Amino acid sequence: MRTFILPDTFNGEREVSLSGKDSHYLCRVLRMKIGQSFAGMDKNGKTWDLKIIAKDAKSCRLACASSLSVDSVYKETLPMLDRPLPNICLYIGLCKGKKMDTVVRQATEIGVSKIIPVKTQHSMVEWSEKASAKANRFEVIVKEALQQCGSRIPTIISEPIMFADLVAHWRSRGPALAFHESSTDDQLPLFSVLDSIAPNDEIAIAIGPEGGFSLEEIEIMKKAGFSIVHLKTNILRSETAVVYALGAVQTYLMEHR
Amino acid sequence: MRTFILPDTFNGEREVSLSGKDSHYLCRVLRMKIGQSFAGMDKNGKTWDLKIIAKDAKSCRLACASSLSVDSVYKETLPMLDRPLPNICLYIGLCKGKKMDTVVRQATEIGVSKIIPVKTQHSMVEWSEKASAKANRFEVIVKEALQQCGSRIPTIISEPIMFADLVAHWRSRGPALAFHESSTDDQLPLFSVLDSIAPNDEIAIAIGPEGGFSLEEIEIMKKAGFSIVHLKTNILRSETAVVYALGAVQTYLMEHR
Repeated sequence: MRTFILPDTFNGEREVSLSGKDSHYLCRVLRMKIGQSFAGMDKNGKTWDLKIIAKDAKSCRLACASSLSVDSVYKETLPMLDRPLPNICLYIGLCKGKKMDTVVRQATEIGVSKIIPVKTQHSMVEWSEKASAKANRFEVIVKEALQQCGSRIPTIISEPIMFADLVAHWRSRGPALAFHESSTDDQLPLFSVLDSIAPNDEIAIAIGPEGGFSLEEIEIMKKAGFSIVHLKTNILRSETAVVYALGAVQTYLMEHR
Repeated sequence: MRTFILPDTFNGEREVSLSGKDSHYLCRVLRMKIGQSFAGMDKNGKTWDLKIIAKDAKSCRLACASSLSVDSVYKETLPMLDRPLPNICLYIGLCKGKKMDTVVRQATEIGVSKIIPVKTQHSMVEWSEKASAKANRFEVIVKEALQQCGSRIPTIISEPIMFADLVAHWRSRGPALAFHESSTDDQLPLFSVLDSIAPNDEIAIAIGPEGGFSLEEIEIMKKAGFSIVHLKTNILRSETAVVYALGAVQTYLMEHR
């Protein structure tokens, strides 16, 4: 384990009791013993030095000390970055089952700040009351990915939204890029769009489901000020496209900003 | 189907007979009928206009016409690229089962020219006579990925090699980059390394298995002239790291070269 994610109910108490899955994970899966210390992160991304001080068959109790600095906790597990990762808000077209799970896990690993699944014209997924059940499953995937990869960014995943609400959801908080499979005349190269982004900008990245965004959706985003970007590569599956695009964007912003 | 991959035995004949999996795929899975035309590619990356001229329960026969131009075949399915994709040779640390399958499929989608699985110190995979059986499975994955994604690059996957043979295998054919999880003092930013690459260079990209390359392996590659590159991001799983790194490298080379 790189980092234990504290429950949402934790609010900086000096001790916290865990039961259910969390306790099972620490005591059974990782076989941690009383007295063992490890790094933790709360819902706000604040880091904690944690120690197991009691346990029984179904629960355990941790002592929580505010970590002196991020570096003291992460020195051994994470490479040192000389600046924070960019603040990326990922709007991702809903795709089917396992594909979507992969996208959510990998975007979390990479350190995206927010993930917003979007039901688009080409989303081959039923929109129903199951949506909130799905949102719960995505939350579990995000939490597991955070624990395993030790990201410093406490990725948040929201309930799926309809494409019609995307522009209002983003509210032009900063530069926005939409990736489109086909090239059109007025598309800009990715890096020239990224050149104009300031270090503290929150950035929206929109990537379609299998089959991409429809031309109508591209038009709506363009009118709302999104830069339409075409990656000069083969046509990629959604789960490949997300990691590929995030690799290009995050690397460029970390090296050139 | 974007492109049908012709069998290795095809050498430009005007007709070709297919049996087994190939015939099953066209006639049963895709339910193609006599008279239907589609795009094909041979082992050298040359494109063909194909048409089904006969079929029975277990085989079919195609007429093969040399395609007038790449564009005539691909216009509808692929975005136009104003230059060819870079010639990338991917050395990838062997990782376990499904992970490796995912890496091979996604590297093929992205248009890597060659994939060479490498048994490294941290490869948690047994090295045995099963290696060639594995090589056969990887070939099937590459072929399926090529058919589904319509890449113009006929990706070749070789049999796994030992890390000790990596430097000799590459024979300094061009610039070489090895990706390393931890940052050391003498690492260069990715894009400054890429800036020195000429358009027609063949490029080696080496990425470790889960757990990355060992320090000893990094030293060996450094001595052989590899640039050691550290991506400024979280620690990523192998399958995420491969797509992330290829996204950054290929996008930069396509936009900046």
